[in-house]
Amino acid sequence: MKFHVLTLFPQMIMDALNTSITGRAIDKGILSVNAVDIRDYTHDKHLKVDDYPYGGGAGMVMQPGPVVECYENIVTKGTKPRVVYMTPQGETFSQAKAKELAQEEELVILCGHYEGIDERALEEIVTDYISIGDYVLTGGELAAMVVIDSVSRLVPGVLNNDVSAETESFSDGLLEYPQYTRPVEFRGKKVPEVLLSGHHAKIDEWRHEKSLERTKRFRPDLYEAYLKDHPEERKN
Amino acid sequence: MKFHVLTLFPQMIMDALNTSITGRAIDKGILSVNAVDIRDYTHDKHLKVDDYPYGGGAGMVMQPGPVVECYENIVTKGTKPRVVYMTPQGETFSQAKAKELAQEEELVILCGHYEGIDERALEEIVTDYISIGDYVLTGGELAAMVVIDSVSRLVPGVLNNDVSAETESFSDGLLEYPQYTRPVEFRGKKVPEVLLSGHHAKIDEWRHEKSLERTKRFRPDLYEAYLKDHPEERKN
Repeated sequence: MKFHVLTLFPQMIMDALNTSITGRAIDKGILSVNAVDIRDYTHDKHLKVDDYPYGGGAGMVMQPGPVVECYENIVTKGTKPRVVYMTPQGETFSQAKAKELAQEEELVILCGHYEGIDERALEEIVTDYISIGDYVLTGGELAAMVVIDSVSRLVPGVLNNDVSAETESFSDGLLEYPQYTRPVEFRGKKVPEVLLSGHHAKIDEWRHEKSLERTKRFRPDLYEAYLKDHPEERKN
Repeated sequence: MKFHVLTLFPQMIMDALNTSITGRAIDKGILSVNAVDIRDYTHDKHLKVDDYPYGGGAGMVMQPGPVVECYENIVTKGTKPRVVYMTPQGETFSQAKAKELAQEEELVILCGHYEGIDERALEEIVTDYISIGDYVLTGGELAAMVVIDSVSRLVPGVLNNDVSAETESFSDGLLEYPQYTRPVEFRGKKVPEVLLSGHHAKIDEWRHEKSLERTKRFRPDLYEAYLKDHPEERKN
């Protein structure tokens, strides 16, 4: 899978993604990430890419020309890859959306800065408006990395252990149960007996109970949705 | 404001945050970010920090010892800073939570990897469990950077323009209106007339209409919440 990132901070993208699991997938040739500097496409002699907003207001707005020319330059002639614009004004990103995007062979991600990008550039090239959550960031770069990371790990071969991608959080609509590893006693706290019992049915039951408890406590919204789908698990 | 990040990939944190607005705030001494390698606190001769989960299951779990020792080493004696663990099993991060955390003078952020961290380490040190959204990432590092970025920009002096932090998305519960800048005509598309009119009341009205339209389209949940608070704006 091929990602193109259109940004004013290409180095930030490349540095962060070269680490860890995505970095290994890039080395193995399963993924490629190409961060392109929008500033390379300005015709302004001072390399300016932004200007004041029409109608007034604080901050600066990225001009349409450099963004659209940058896009046109990186896209192979004749192809129409999806273009995701990272913006608080978008649909909220989710695991379902990550799965959908993981089906694409090529994905363009556009990062805004300042007060955003001129609307005409967005109308011209963007197919998906995505927000990673209801909070404000200084730019779209971290959001783009979040999308690339969560989509990448669903691409076959990126995780060493294919089971892992599926057994994790959200796959059954509940939060994950607590995990324990060695040593069996840590500062006076022991691993719960049941996990040492070797009794798989009891372990599964304990883990399911813990998942329910946590989901109820931290995410009542997910808990209610789960009980709606599993009415037999509703207790008084 | 001082951030400590406990992670297996400290370089990833430092590279990404040295760029852009957070980087400038670090240079100015308004922020400090200290990424600490949890691996430095293992006593294993092969520098191992993880092991198989008790009770079985895919993947590896981070052991409690190195995490807790890392925490104890970075925290000044006698202080009890909040410790945020980045996990899908947490409360969903929001702009309100960012404002709350921006009040702290010191914040510790703990990043998990693999199948998470031994529960006993979390019970020992964590005060806040936070998720940046309903999707799975390969580790907590990107999530930590998202929290640092959104909290930092609310710290006085980090953004050059203090107005900016307040006029942006979510401040009035609606998505932001479209923005336009020079040139007045781009590939046949003109800036909406009203923005060139200089008539401020009309510009405000137009922007408010656009905000409502967008919010209704992309975030019906926010739109309904807004109308509940502003019943006079409900139309048939």
